[in-house]
Amino acid sequence: MATTINKQVVLRDYVTGFANESDLVITSTTVDLRVPKGSMTALVKNLYLSCDPYMRNRMRKPDPLSPATAQSFTPGKPISGFGVSKVIDSGHSDYEEGDLLWGAVGWEEYSVITPIPNLHFKIHHTDFPLSYYTGLLGMPGMTAYVGFYEICSPKKGDTVFVSAASGAVGQLVGQFAKMMGCYVVGSAGSKEKVDLLKNKFGFDDAFNYKEEHNLIAALKRCFPEGIDIYFENVGGKMLDAVILNMRPHGRIAACGMISQYNLKNPEGIYGLSLITYKRIRIQGFNCFDYFDKYSEFLEFVVPYIREGKITYVEDVADGIESAPAALVGLFHGKNVGKQLVVVSPS
Amino acid sequence: MATTINKQVVLRDYVTGFANESDLVITSTTVDLRVPKGSMTALVKNLYLSCDPYMRNRMRKPDPLSPATAQSFTPGKPISGFGVSKVIDSGHSDYEEGDLLWGAVGWEEYSVITPIPNLHFKIHHTDFPLSYYTGLLGMPGMTAYVGFYEICSPKKGDTVFVSAASGAVGQLVGQFAKMMGCYVVGSAGSKEKVDLLKNKFGFDDAFNYKEEHNLIAALKRCFPEGIDIYFENVGGKMLDAVILNMRPHGRIAACGMISQYNLKNPEGIYGLSLITYKRIRIQGFNCFDYFDKYSEFLEFVVPYIREGKITYVEDVADGIESAPAALVGLFHGKNVGKQLVVVSPS
Repeated sequence: MATTINKQVVLRDYVTGFANESDLVITSTTVDLRVPKGSMTALVKNLYLSCDPYMRNRMRKPDPLSPATAQSFTPGKPISGFGVSKVIDSGHSDYEEGDLLWGAVGWEEYSVITPIPNLHFKIHHTDFPLSYYTGLLGMPGMTAYVGFYEICSPKKGDTVFVSAASGAVGQLVGQFAKMMGCYVVGSAGSKEKVDLLKNKFGFDDAFNYKEEHNLIAALKRCFPEGIDIYFENVGGKMLDAVILNMRPHGRIAACGMISQYNLKNPEGIYGLSLITYKRIRIQGFNCFDYFDKYSEFLEFVVPYIREGKITYVEDVADGIESAPAALVGLFHGKNVGKQLVVVSPS
Repeated sequence: MATTINKQVVLRDYVTGFANESDLVITSTTVDLRVPKGSMTALVKNLYLSCDPYMRNRMRKPDPLSPATAQSFTPGKPISGFGVSKVIDSGHSDYEEGDLLWGAVGWEEYSVITPIPNLHFKIHHTDFPLSYYTGLLGMPGMTAYVGFYEICSPKKGDTVFVSAASGAVGQLVGQFAKMMGCYVVGSAGSKEKVDLLKNKFGFDDAFNYKEEHNLIAALKRCFPEGIDIYFENVGGKMLDAVILNMRPHGRIAACGMISQYNLKNPEGIYGLSLITYKRIRIQGFNCFDYFDKYSEFLEFVVPYIREGKITYVEDVADGIESAPAALVGLFHGKNVGKQLVVVSPS
């Protein structure tokens, strides 16, 4: 049977503290180019891999006290995530050679997958960059869509703060909020990103959190009347500063807390008792619970992209060998826009 | 004009750290026994005063960074709260001598009030102890009612944890949850209170948090499959232990965080990033927003009280001189059940 070489990104061992490039190793194996007919599996060639913050939590040793967190990767095995792939051979009647899809795959050049509804999606709109299915048209896009429209209870005129605002999800939340007529401010970690927020994504204001001595004061400056909606991507000190600046009946969509994922001891949140007086709602959510709305999301977002009303910035790393650095770079904010890896352009 | 002596409970100065009995001083003044006709005011004789945890926050110096918190008391003036009163004289056409009401009054023997809808309520059911209108039939009752039914999204079979469970609100939440067919566990600070929870209020289980070395393990023992609903009355370490033990899609009703109110530096909450993975909702609320449902609440609760299906335990301090100790005692858990002060039985 024909085989080919399959480079993989393997987790060396469980990670504590900051993930390093060396925690991920490129290895080579071989893969059969055919799958058995009727096997319900498909061999896919991975074109793009998505670097997402939640993946750091999957590098952690499983914690029996927190069984609800994302399932840990297995040391010695390739890690997995979301990607864009092309079907090479299929034993599944719904898929055939040449089909494009996005969804859960291994971090490797070729994966044998068992397509699962709401975890693997056929790509029908091919007039957009395929890489968009790691971001704007994929999991981060769905996250921004359900996070903003379902979790934040937004309305025209609301004041909206987005942290990690130039990232895969944040840049979309800001644009959705502007489209709704909200006043939108974002935070990011460099002047370049702040410029993007203000000049490309249309945020009303933005600040570089690394240059603010006092986050409470920075938020007070940007929101003299307080914050109605906080789209939470970072956690830690930023969350505490936001709670102090929230208006009564404010909503916090807890999408992620990237600042905490690499800490051995997470930072404390000290102002939580204010949420009673302020009637604040903090809602954790995960787009996995909403993937049945994916086609609704596409109907919503595709026209805006076609009309140029929504834009998207990607940070593309070239080749699977660059994948470890690209993923680890997320946690140092090295990416400008959605971080992805191009394994093969077609 | 006829006057009478009016003893008052006066705040000496803003309080930092634990409130002491000496922060509150009993003073005497005089009050006119008549109010002008057409003045929209009423002179009331206060029969019962309600000791409530939120009052500690009103002893704090106003914080411009947290304008949404409860309005601070004024040093040198009598404090205020909820109470049960009898109208002595009225310049308000809706009230007449002898009317009984509950609502916002000064901590004093007599108050001149301007009755405000949804802040003052006439008492129509007088076949219950009048003191119930400081608890079961008053603000704490409404808090338990809206907190459980509106905020917790409860359903039959849910696992429910209530902290400060023998207090004014907790004892009712536990009984409401049992009536709905939930599995209910409470925590409290003494063996006597734990016995009350299990034997009088019908909780399925209860523990004394002061005797648990490890709150995480205590909750794991009581909820091997995790917690669906947490009715939060205490905050701090208990909240962190609960978050670790919450089930996916769990709900936390943040009613109050009494363990934090007397701390100069509040405790940190360290496990908050878990709420994303677990899709937990934390909702701060205040029964003031729901007082338009008060008559609905009475229709709901009164039959249960008459049928003996809901019971209520009060801790009654005798005389206005005992008010400072009664209020401060709340923060040391000295009360068993709803703490109130009887100023005059009629």
